[in-house]
Amino acid sequence: MSRVRGFRPAPLTRRRFLEQLGAIGGSSLVMTAMSSMELMADGAGERPQLTGKPGKARVLVLGCGISGLVVGYELAKLGYDFQMLEARDRVGGLAWTVRRGSEHTEADGGERQVCTWDEGQYVNVGPWRIPHSHTGVLNYCREVGVPLQIFLNESESQYVYYEGDAIGPLAGRKLRVREVRADLQGQINELLIKAIDQHRLDSPLTVEDQDRLANFLVSQGYLDSTDRRYKAFNNRGPGDPHDLAALLQSGFGNRIRSVSPLEGTVASPMFQPVGGMDQLPKGLARAIGSNRIALNAEVQSVHQDDRGVKVVYANSKNGKKTEIAADYVVICLPLNILANIDINVSEEMMTAIKAVPYSSSAKIGLAMKRRFWEEDDGIFGGHLYSNLPLGEFSYPSNDYFTKKGVLLGLYANQPVADLLDRPVAARIEHVLTHASKVHPQIRQEFESGYAVFWKKVKYNLGGFATGAARARRPQLTKVENRLIIGSAATAPHSEPDWQEGAVAAGWQALTSLHERAMRSSSAGGR
Amino acid sequence: MSRVRGFRPAPLTRRRFLEQLGAIGGSSLVMTAMSSMELMADGAGERPQLTGKPGKARVLVLGCGISGLVVGYELAKLGYDFQMLEARDRVGGLAWTVRRGSEHTEADGGERQVCTWDEGQYVNVGPWRIPHSHTGVLNYCREVGVPLQIFLNESESQYVYYEGDAIGPLAGRKLRVREVRADLQGQINELLIKAIDQHRLDSPLTVEDQDRLANFLVSQGYLDSTDRRYKAFNNRGPGDPHDLAALLQSGFGNRIRSVSPLEGTVASPMFQPVGGMDQLPKGLARAIGSNRIALNAEVQSVHQDDRGVKVVYANSKNGKKTEIAADYVVICLPLNILANIDINVSEEMMTAIKAVPYSSSAKIGLAMKRRFWEEDDGIFGGHLYSNLPLGEFSYPSNDYFTKKGVLLGLYANQPVADLLDRPVAARIEHVLTHASKVHPQIRQEFESGYAVFWKKVKYNLGGFATGAARARRPQLTKVENRLIIGSAATAPHSEPDWQEGAVAAGWQALTSLHERAMRSSSAGGR
Repeated sequence: MSRVRGFRPAPLTRRRFLEQLGAIGGSSLVMTAMSSMELMADGAGERPQLTGKPGKARVLVLGCGISGLVVGYELAKLGYDFQMLEARDRVGGLAWTVRRGSEHTEADGGERQVCTWDEGQYVNVGPWRIPHSHTGVLNYCREVGVPLQIFLNESESQYVYYEGDAIGPLAGRKLRVREVRADLQGQINELLIKAIDQHRLDSPLTVEDQDRLANFLVSQGYLDSTDRRYKAFNNRGPGDPHDLAALLQSGFGNRIRSVSPLEGTVASPMFQPVGGMDQLPKGLARAIGSNRIALNAEVQSVHQDDRGVKVVYANSKNGKKTEIAADYVVICLPLNILANIDINVSEEMMTAIKAVPYSSSAKIGLAMKRRFWEEDDGIFGGHLYSNLPLGEFSYPSNDYFTKKGVLLGLYANQPVADLLDRPVAARIEHVLTHASKVHPQIRQEFESGYAVFWKKVKYNLGGFATGAARARRPQLTKVENRLIIGSAATAPHSEPDWQEGAVAAGWQALTSLHERAMRSSSAGGR
Repeated sequence: MSRVRGFRPAPLTRRRFLEQLGAIGGSSLVMTAMSSMELMADGAGERPQLTGKPGKARVLVLGCGISGLVVGYELAKLGYDFQMLEARDRVGGLAWTVRRGSEHTEADGGERQVCTWDEGQYVNVGPWRIPHSHTGVLNYCREVGVPLQIFLNESESQYVYYEGDAIGPLAGRKLRVREVRADLQGQINELLIKAIDQHRLDSPLTVEDQDRLANFLVSQGYLDSTDRRYKAFNNRGPGDPHDLAALLQSGFGNRIRSVSPLEGTVASPMFQPVGGMDQLPKGLARAIGSNRIALNAEVQSVHQDDRGVKVVYANSKNGKKTEIAADYVVICLPLNILANIDINVSEEMMTAIKAVPYSSSAKIGLAMKRRFWEEDDGIFGGHLYSNLPLGEFSYPSNDYFTKKGVLLGLYANQPVADLLDRPVAARIEHVLTHASKVHPQIRQEFESGYAVFWKKVKYNLGGFATGAARARRPQLTKVENRLIIGSAATAPHSEPDWQEGAVAAGWQALTSLHERAMRSSSAGGR
């Protein structure tokens, strides 16, 4: 049975709060809030320990995103007879890595993009980083032989760049995280030392321990060991310290913590698969076996009765329809896609399915001729901290010191301006315009971009299931006779915006299926 | 010409001070002092831009450690006619990676070790980490196609374990760096907030900015946002906060800095070659071409006169001697090895050569059946912070989440107890005994160890040239007619205990050689 680790009561208003915040302050503000609110995803818990094997139950899994692949992988290990259907010509769903030859046409007759980057250049346009606590995903990487490397969430060399009147004197200045940290801590330590020296410290510390405290403050803050004042010093980088009042007014301090959170978007360390996030779905599919997975199989209808389920799918290349029969069907499609499939579930279930909105997640990868952020700025991994309308702007945590590289020019989970309605070239231009405030080289080094706005990606039409899914889970996780939903939206305790949530959802569906199948099997029926 | 970047007057007493400290307090204390003193190596500066090609000058390079390989690589690019001699059956010198099949017999009839670890398991027993500022080494990695990965110098999950009366109540306790950081900062922030609330802060900050400061202190230190006190909170890990006085008494705080230094042993980020440090020398050798490098060629004598140099070397397998003639010889051997070769240099030169002592560097790799530090303790990379007689005890920054792994059980640059005089098994037992205080699983998971004590490694008989080399450099870098010394000990501004120093020394020797050869060439002589 799946054991729930670190369960917390569902904070129903989380995503909603962040969405409102995003509408007001832009996605950067949301990122900040997310890291400061400790609204973190937990690990998926322990993998269900299932035993036994049902008689001849035949299972169909719909969708080969992470949750579907997890179900398939475990069904194979349990010795089930199963098939998987995937509408695309690739597995992975949101876990998509764009590289040379990747292509897609935006929904409703939108633009077609084809990636022409050099071999070896890529960007993860869906999930991209795995906290070390997400042992569900990490252990699957281990099992299917996907090597992992460190994903650097912060680099002290990265820039902080905020615009606007609210920022104060440091608005529009390009600072290093290193300067912000060092100057804040150094000047604060100086203040505390003064209080100690003036015997103004209200503390039970002995005089000896107060001396030790002062020594610690000198060493931690790189203060001058003679007069114990904070001055410019090598490790903060060139220039004079920034004024403490200006730093406090800027609000940059909300990026600084004594220790990094154990969970969530800024946990440390985080990991990424070597060679792209798609290595995980590819590895799972390899382990499952290609004979089990039908690609280009677009599900049209799912009809169950007391004797079984009939699923009709169309070949997405030539439209040819095929009917396939099964005893049970595990549905691992995005709920907003499922909502438009002809399926005989209860009214309550369809209401719940239709009630879950999906995020407006988007990413834009920018291939660069030269890794100027490494060569010119000494930045290796991490993100730009800014309030520019770019969401997260990120530097690659792979292939350091090679020639070319792909920047993540924009990552947002809420709409950014009206980008969704603009041509791809205009979206890329938006990124170049804003990013060049910090990296003036970006235009000259720019090769070509690739924009993935999930709201316009066929078979997804959105990113991850938003927080609204939580309220619907009691309904969504009900087994309706032969149908079980295993989409990431049903993740029992992890947030569905992490692959770990997809794993947890898969495990939960698998457990429900196995219980259902074993019950029928032991009852002699099927 | 080589441009010197970040030159500082030679701190002649540095290494000597650290050696004395090591003799008193053990190597852990030295590590601490090194990281707190900002006695850091600078990058090698810029690669010399040499032009022209001397007539028919034939060059011999002695030694295929990093400095020799750099000289050879650049000579090839300049179009020189050259050969390289290397006494071992491998290139790299100190840049040695021990893996299955590695073997050596300690000098003077000592023990023989043969590494029997699984394929893919390895440990770097010489240099192991490259600060991002060491662009000399990093650019060679790039040029010869050696991929780099992040070397994690600190992980918040790693343990702090100190023994002894001086440590106070926290002696013998296994703490996480995370707890130490969070508890110190949180309680210190609480003290400062109290001073602000009691209007005891002596600062020009406005009341509004003092509010901002208090808010920053709450958020940075994870204080309770209501009463602004520091309490147990999720991200510090389980348990109650440690007493501030106890933390201050322990001295653990000297491991904590507002920002990591830009240079040296705890710079961030650092890198390592994927697959082992020996990938760099192998890559350089590949680029140079195997026809240029004679392995198993032990130099016996170097005799120069006005017309040229004659070098005699013996095949280290069968003793067969060969004489080879050259116009110039670049010597990239450790000076303590050179001191015992029959060579006609000036008396002043030989005095300088003999005056440079080499470090007692040692490393012990321990192959483990299971990565228990990852699986059981959630530690990924970084070191154990302790005063145990292990020097640095380190976790691998590679192949995370795989099954087996190699721990660096001991890394010291000074003698540790009398380990050098004990059998290899006893040295390994020493490590297991002490390390099991922190990692009780280590004995059960232990597979086999490999100990490299450089004082006993033939063709080195020591680690890196110690600080005493600095005073001898004006002499050592003199060109004595046709002989030029390019050993790492002559590094012009970097410390010779970094590969970057070896690169800088190679560049310097190359520049001297080229000037000398071009002068003769243009004068019509050779």
